[in-house]
Amino acid sequence: MSDTICAPATASNGGAIAVIRVSGPESLKAVGNIARFRSGSATDARGYSLRFGEIPGVDEVLVSIFKNPHSYTGEDAAEISCHCSPFIVRRILELLIQNGCRMAEPGEFTRRAFLAGKMDLAQAEAVSELISSDSTAAHRIALNQLRGGYSAELKGLRDSILDLTALVELELDFSEEEVEFAGRDKLKGLVSQAIARVDALSESFRVGNAIKNGVPVVIAGAVNSGKSTLLNALVGEERAIVSNIPGTTRDTIEEVVTVDGVQFRFIDTAGIRETADTVERIGIDRAHSAIAASEIVIGVLDGLGDADAAASALRAVVPADKKLILVRTKMDLCPASAPIEGVLDICTANGLGLSELKAALSGYASTASEGTVVTSARHYEALRDASASLNAVLDGMGSGIPTDLLAEDLREAVRSLGRIWGEDLGISAQDTLNHIFGRFCIGK
Amino acid sequence: MSDTICAPATASNGGAIAVIRVSGPESLKAVGNIARFRSGSATDARGYSLRFGEIPGVDEVLVSIFKNPHSYTGEDAAEISCHCSPFIVRRILELLIQNGCRMAEPGEFTRRAFLAGKMDLAQAEAVSELISSDSTAAHRIALNQLRGGYSAELKGLRDSILDLTALVELELDFSEEEVEFAGRDKLKGLVSQAIARVDALSESFRVGNAIKNGVPVVIAGAVNSGKSTLLNALVGEERAIVSNIPGTTRDTIEEVVTVDGVQFRFIDTAGIRETADTVERIGIDRAHSAIAASEIVIGVLDGLGDADAAASALRAVVPADKKLILVRTKMDLCPASAPIEGVLDICTANGLGLSELKAALSGYASTASEGTVVTSARHYEALRDASASLNAVLDGMGSGIPTDLLAEDLREAVRSLGRIWGEDLGISAQDTLNHIFGRFCIGK
Repeated sequence: MSDTICAPATASNGGAIAVIRVSGPESLKAVGNIARFRSGSATDARGYSLRFGEIPGVDEVLVSIFKNPHSYTGEDAAEISCHCSPFIVRRILELLIQNGCRMAEPGEFTRRAFLAGKMDLAQAEAVSELISSDSTAAHRIALNQLRGGYSAELKGLRDSILDLTALVELELDFSEEEVEFAGRDKLKGLVSQAIARVDALSESFRVGNAIKNGVPVVIAGAVNSGKSTLLNALVGEERAIVSNIPGTTRDTIEEVVTVDGVQFRFIDTAGIRETADTVERIGIDRAHSAIAASEIVIGVLDGLGDADAAASALRAVVPADKKLILVRTKMDLCPASAPIEGVLDICTANGLGLSELKAALSGYASTASEGTVVTSARHYEALRDASASLNAVLDGMGSGIPTDLLAEDLREAVRSLGRIWGEDLGISAQDTLNHIFGRFCIGK
Repeated sequence: MSDTICAPATASNGGAIAVIRVSGPESLKAVGNIARFRSGSATDARGYSLRFGEIPGVDEVLVSIFKNPHSYTGEDAAEISCHCSPFIVRRILELLIQNGCRMAEPGEFTRRAFLAGKMDLAQAEAVSELISSDSTAAHRIALNQLRGGYSAELKGLRDSILDLTALVELELDFSEEEVEFAGRDKLKGLVSQAIARVDALSESFRVGNAIKNGVPVVIAGAVNSGKSTLLNALVGEERAIVSNIPGTTRDTIEEVVTVDGVQFRFIDTAGIRETADTVERIGIDRAHSAIAASEIVIGVLDGLGDADAAASALRAVVPADKKLILVRTKMDLCPASAPIEGVLDICTANGLGLSELKAALSGYASTASEGTVVTSARHYEALRDASASLNAVLDGMGSGIPTDLLAEDLREAVRSLGRIWGEDLGISAQDTLNHIFGRFCIGK
């Protein structure tokens, strides 16, 4: 890792200034070669200082100087701030390359930061999550991960499994002396606790992923029950931040609405009923598919119809692992109807019940996103592996597997967790890093 | 000008980092309020230094600190470098505004730099020219203007007119004593010299404007003379940087090609001939309009036809103020033809003559862009005004106008030039500044 890399760190169009990043042992020399400063040089500047100068024939620039190890990458580094023009940015990069730098690969600055121990792998991944997060909830999760809170929680879990391993190995060492340091039942209890924590984390992936990409909410119900009117009411409230996403694999139109900082993707579906009509049947099949892919289903009951029967029908259709919110519409037309237990009455004409509906939606996401939330498929996989190893320990204890094999399974669980923050990447280390940093943008 | 402004200085999409600018007396306090630094505060930091810190709940940031008067605007200022996400940028701006800043208007940072005397008006205008320049030639002109070379040349011209004014006023003071310090003929010669310099500068506006927006080159000639083949050959050479610009007011398609750092807009036209066909007549009228709006005409002669006659016809059609480059095509089909004086032989099949044609094109632009080039319509207008005043002086000298009136005209010429770099903006100062900086982007 002895070469010096450069890349634009900002978009080169549409801004007032552009920033070019340089990192590596020759970075200050390269910057010093291409820029002329009012006083001093790039190499004699203090770290964390700025120099104003000129790149002759190209632009006037402001250069931020960073000295090893006090930089993002831990190397000598510089950031050149120039006027934002694709022409100027290209010219500066050409000059840097002529002076011994090479273009950075996507994510290479952050990769170097990871390799220099400036951040662990989960924090490094959070950088790209942070850049792409576009709701308060997704942003909060990414920031917690970047600040190390996420890794700290996982390392706490790892430590408790390590303690467990020590107990098991102690028993192993003294087994011939028939000393039992921890009772098998106590050990089993500790393993079960660890499994519960690992499983809770991997469980959070579903909602974490939904928060990152927008929580899918299907609006389902009988034909003419008021589903589209409800969609319009939900969307109309915050039209400014609504976007139309034409479905690519379905014909449904999704509407994205941010409620209390969480993005929801509302999906309107065909009314569900028994039908002999082939085309309608396809629409209803799609509604079922949409429900299967959703996190939340808003079940719409027609206030003018048999709401109890419609509620039963919806409860039968919606799988138990989805959150079902039942709403009864058209309440302006049937004000005298008796309330139904567990059903929210709504009137889109006067706004009755809409804020309660939104509160139910955001309540779902905020409860689910309390504490540590997993948003990365890579982490989810590592957690599933850890859970499998721990379950093997639990099974082994029941069936009298030798203690040394149990200890090996525990160590495997520890290794699985370690992959999340970048320990024990093992023989696939390069592949893992290429995969992670390849998804970054250039200059990060 | 006592308030503190903030604005994003980079595009908030598609980069790794984003930069937010803050300038004004409260800028360091506002930044200190929203960010928590590892050590020290924003207000106790030295100018031209960097601080790493956190905006709680928002992002980790790097803050560049500038102290009055050593900043772009001459005020206390800061640049907050955060992860590039529209969400984060919006949140930081909200926090700054809650802490006493307001959103900057377009160009307001540069406007403040001008008002603080950090740059003159021509330099300030060059900032926006520099950002939008997308060819070497346009960039070189803008950079020269930003670096002050342009203003220096104009101020030299102003000084020589001031000297002239002094001579005239001296004559005025001593006129009753019948002392003539400078002979009228010598004065006339000096005024004529000044007029020649002013006119040369305003002349350069035509080519300066063409270089800024792409030099319009019309390819004209008889039907089937090989115009489109030539266009394809010119474009094909550098297809990577070619873009299709569908004409909006004409039906012609323009192709933009950069030759030796200058952008040329090649415009294919209908073949020119006498015709009774109405539609063809319209096409030919358009060809004439295109020629009238062009800087350069490439006159295409058919090597298989009567090239001498075609050359005469083109010379008759192209106005004298356009550069006419005559080329004879299809030379692979008539290799034995005798060369024609002033006509370049071309064969698109084997590339013969293409580089000579390009050299002729770039030669035109580089000769024309040597030295100081005017690219701004505002400056062009000021130069025309100065020229008119100087011509009035010259006329007045011939017709015995009193010296004090002549001196007034000379001072008017000086004032006209001064408007270019921002002296003597007079009662229209605010309008002028609004007009200039209103075209800037936010954050500049």
